[in-house]
Parts: sequence; C-alpha cells; structure tokens
Amino acid sequence: MSILKATAAACANIAFIKYWGQRDVELNLPANSSLSMNLDRLTTVTTVEFSPDYDDDVVILDGREERGEARQRIVAHLDRVRAMAGLRAGARVISKNSFPTGVGLASSASGFAALSLAASRAAGLELSQRELSILARFGSGSACRSIPGGFSEWTAGTCSEESFARQIAPPEHWELRDVIAIVSRAHKRVGSTEGHALAPTSHLYQARVASVAGRLAQAKAALLEKDLATLGRIIEEDAISMHAVMMTSRPPIYYWLPGSIKLIHEVQNWRAEGLEVYFTFDAGPNIHLICQAADQAEVERRLRDIEEVLEVIVSGPGPGARVIEP
Amino acid sequence: MSILKATAAACANIAFIKYWGQRDVELNLPANSSLSMNLDRLTTVTTVEFSPDYDDDVVILDGREERGEARQRIVAHLDRVRAMAGLRAGARVISKNSFPTGVGLASSASGFAALSLAASRAAGLELSQRELSILARFGSGSACRSIPGGFSEWTAGTCSEESFARQIAPPEHWELRDVIAIVSRAHKRVGSTEGHALAPTSHLYQARVASVAGRLAQAKAALLEKDLATLGRIIEEDAISMHAVMMTSRPPIYYWLPGSIKLIHEVQNWRAEGLEVYFTFDAGPNIHLICQAADQAEVERRLRDIEEVLEVIVSGPGPGARVIEP
Repeated sequence: MSILKATAAACANIAFIKYWGQRDVELNLPANSSLSMNLDRLTTVTTVEFSPDYDDDVVILDGREERGEARQRIVAHLDRVRAMAGLRAGARVISKNSFPTGVGLASSASGFAALSLAASRAAGLELSQRELSILARFGSGSACRSIPGGFSEWTAGTCSEESFARQIAPPEHWELRDVIAIVSRAHKRVGSTEGHALAPTSHLYQARVASVAGRLAQAKAALLEKDLATLGRIIEEDAISMHAVMMTSRPPIYYWLPGSIKLIHEVQNWRAEGLEVYFTFDAGPNIHLICQAADQAEVERRLRDIEEVLEVIVSGPGPGARVIEP
Repeated sequence: MSILKATAAACANIAFIKYWGQRDVELNLPANSSLSMNLDRLTTVTTVEFSPDYDDDVVILDGREERGEARQRIVAHLDRVRAMAGLRAGARVISKNSFPTGVGLASSASGFAALSLAASRAAGLELSQRELSILARFGSGSACRSIPGGFSEWTAGTCSEESFARQIAPPEHWELRDVIAIVSRAHKRVGSTEGHALAPTSHLYQARVASVAGRLAQAKAALLEKDLATLGRIIEEDAISMHAVMMTSRPPIYYWLPGSIKLIHEVQNWRAEGLEVYFTFDAGPNIHLICQAADQAEVERRLRDIEEVLEVIVSGPGPGARVIEP
C-alpha cells in the first residue's frame, strides 16, 4: 500500500470586506461575499498521514496534542476528506504555525486551508482549487479565502457549490502591507462560531448585509487600480460596520480594547499628517494597519512608540495553499 | 414701562433613547422619538433682560462675554421670542452653569431650556409647557426634553406643533443616578449640529431609526415599572447603535476614547460581580453610568480607582425648567 502522507502550507488572510453572519449554518454559507489578502508572515504548515494502523485520529498543534473541541473540529474535517476518498483510516495530523500562537491572531483560516490540502492529497485526492476552497469552507468559513494566492474574493453563493474563493489578483499585483499591532494576547471571550450565530440578533445586521455588495464592488475596483485612498476608506467602514453588528448583538460582543480605540484615532492623525495608512479589525482587539510597502517602516516605527502595542507583525501579500511534500 | 426681566433655571438631561439625525433640519424635527432623565446636578441659571435702551444683544456665559457663533445662536433664539411677543428691544443675557464648563458636558440642553423660559417670561409671555418645549427645541433639539421635570419623552412628530417633550414620570418616581465619568475634558471635534447632518450618510442610519420605536416602548415600560435590568440593556444597545451610526457616517465620527472602551468593559465586569449598573454615552467620550441610588457610592468608589477617569459627577432625577424670579 502506498504512503498516505502529505504536507501543505497555507497563509492566514486579512479581510478587506468582512464575513460576519451566515446564510446557512450547516453548509457554512456566509451572509455576504468578502474580499481578502493572504498574509505571507502568518503561515500554517500541516502534515497529514493516514494509516489503517491508526485506531484514532491524533492531532498535534505546535507540539501539543489537542483534545476536546479543537480536536473534534479537525476530526470532523478529516471525516469529510475520508468520505470523499472512500478511505477508512485513522490520521496523524501535525501542524505548526509560523506565527506566535496565543497572541490573539486567528489561525483557523491558515489551519483549515493547510489541513484541507494536506489531508486531501494524503488521501489520494487531486482536488481543483475550487473544490479545495469549498472543502476548506466547511472547516472554517474564512479558510476558503486562503486557498487561492494573493487577493481573493469569496462569493457567498446560494448553495455549497457556488460558495468558494477565487483569486482576483496575484500576490505580486500590489506591494501592500498588513502591519498588525497586537494590543492583547488574551484569548477572545466569544469565538467566531458563536459570534456568527449571534449576528442576526443585531438590529443593524440586515442593513450591514445589504450594504456589503456596494462596498465590495468599490473595494475590488480600488484594489485592481491600486487606489489605496479609496480602498482604505471602504475597509475602515466595513470593519466598523462589522463591529457595530457585534456590539449590538444580543448579547453584545465588545472585542475592542482601549488600545484598539487609541489606534483608530492615531491612524486618523497619521493620515492627517500625510502618512497613508488605514485600519481594519478581525473579530478581536488587534488592529491591522494597511499601507504600501514604502510606508511600512514608518508605520512600524510609530507603533513601537505606543505603550498599548505589545508586538508588531508585518505581512505582505502571501501565496495560496501549496503542497510541500511529497 | 414694566421691567422686562426674568431668571429661570433648567437641568441638562441624559437620553436613555437617543436623538441622532433629523427629519427636518429647518424645524429641528428629530428622526425618532427619544426618552430622557433630567440631571439635577447639571443646571443652568439664565437671566434675560430686554430693554429698548439696549442697541444690541449682549450674552455673558459663566462671566465671559460670548462672541461669534455661540452668541449668534442665542441671538437667533431671542429673535424667536421677540417675534412671538411683538417686542423690539435689545437683550442682556447672563447665564451660569452649575457644573464645570469645558469638561465635555453638553450645556446646550439646559442652556436653551433656561433661555426659553427666562426670555419668554421677560418678554411678558406666559407659555404652556408644550409651547416652551417647542420653543426650546428650535434652540437645541434635546433642550425640549429639559422643560418637563423628571423623566420625559420627546415625540418626534411630523410637524413643529407635534414635536415636543412631556413628562412620563416625575423626579420622585425613581431614585436613579447618572454617575458621569469624565475621561476627556477636550472639546469635541465634531459638534452635534454637524453630526446630525452627517447621520443619514451612514449605511446603518435607516435601520437604527426604524428600530428605535421598539426600544423606546420597552424602555418606557421598564422605566414605569422600575425594571433596571430591562431598561439598562436597552439603553446600552441604543447608545451603541447611535455611536455605530456616528462611526459609519461619511466622514466617520469617532467620539469614543480608550477610557470609554475601558469603562464599557468594566461595566460588564461589575455587573457580572453583582453590581447593577449600565452605561450610556452622549455625542462624546464621557460615559454615563446609570444605577439605583443604593449603588451610587460603590459605583463612584470603583470609578475613582480608574486612571482614565478625571472627574466624577453624580446626578439624580432633576426638576423641570422653572422661573426663579420675579
């Protein structure tokens, strides 16, 4: 019997137009389409080995064996791959993040993208990019955007086959930078899965969802034209819009911390001073500052002067998910 | 000729359901109805004297003669009163705030309520509470809520005659406290007049306006039943909803500061520990903590331990606008 083993790498991504709330929970169909950039500095490398000799699935993440819910989510994903391949075998999954874990950065996008590619290849499947993106989506919605390289659009779709991400520009299209300022290393109190489920309880949710298509079209055009002034204002508005939904959910979710607000103001001040930088947030307090490569050093320098900033991590546009071996 | 002079006092008020955005700018008709409590600690006392001997209007606020726009807004209000009374006379206006000025607390509500009563009485008019509330509304929208005592509802209305505040409960109905934590003494960069005009540019504005009636009905019922748990959650949601509109206006308005967010989190923590306190915000960074009289001392105590809190001002439910002399 051939060796059922493969290793794959995938980047995390930062959404310029956000995904928050689901059209279909079972299928992980989002309420709206979204737009993102892969982050070259935030990479997960995952090895999957299937063997009929393994009784059970073992998951080792950054050297530590996972138990409970975290493992269960990965086992459920392995089950999807086994079902597709008609495979009956236990798996050993070894996964490593290139970025510090426990700094409040979501690793589920890079993690499930790498897992989807490594597991499907180990199981002998040769999936297309579209099929991989759909598979990754079942693991974690935003993981589907980490399959293509560079800049991606995840079309919401109305059924599973329609809901996947495709590249709208390769990494080399634009030397953008995501300068992440870590203002808290605490684990978030409300996870994304729970948050997505709460989104429709906000009285602002429908208005947000209805408004996304307009922003996405503008952001995509600005991205293709490399018009940062336009792109930047749209991504800030979209991030605030998502947090407005979070904070008006029942119960509300307050992800921002004092440092988050301080940096929102600093970004406005810096722009007024001529430094072209814009912010966005994921479902957490850490702020992502988007600028061009030429301004990266100055943004980093200013961030290091701010007491609330614990750490700075800089990424450029990253590649898509890729097989490393065999 | 009789002496055309009168002195009146009026309280500021804190809105439990907010007013943000106008249905009619000319008439100062709000986009939605609102609900508030007068604040007994924040009072303006205003004396107006009309005399045919005065060539021009003189406005002295807290001992300083006002010039420019601030004076012009008051002169325009005096003109309304003169037109109603058929009076041709200059005015001397002397106004004093009982609370520290320049701590980021809006004085326009108490100021225009006191001015409306003092000026109309000095001009020989005996206006009903409804007429006074309508008059005050032209000076500053929220001033109309400072005319009745205690707890008031401002009905938005579709014409000027319908848009005024009436008392829904007297001050003695409920020993609520508004414990204001001052986190910034800076003047706000975007004033309310400008902010109201920007409100409709937010993609969340219509959804907010449409959702207010439901919250107002619930908040009013909770207020009448003295159900702080229900009232509190609604006022928090409404305050966040208003700030969501502000932050998604074009351009966005960010009133919150790091201390504002810190206290949002503290309020959640304190509630989890059993201290029943809820927050709201006006168009600014200072947070208003709403609790019952029995918990006031503990809320104050905890606030004084927080570095970002520069000053604490406590109010109970205040009286309506009243004539002090003659």
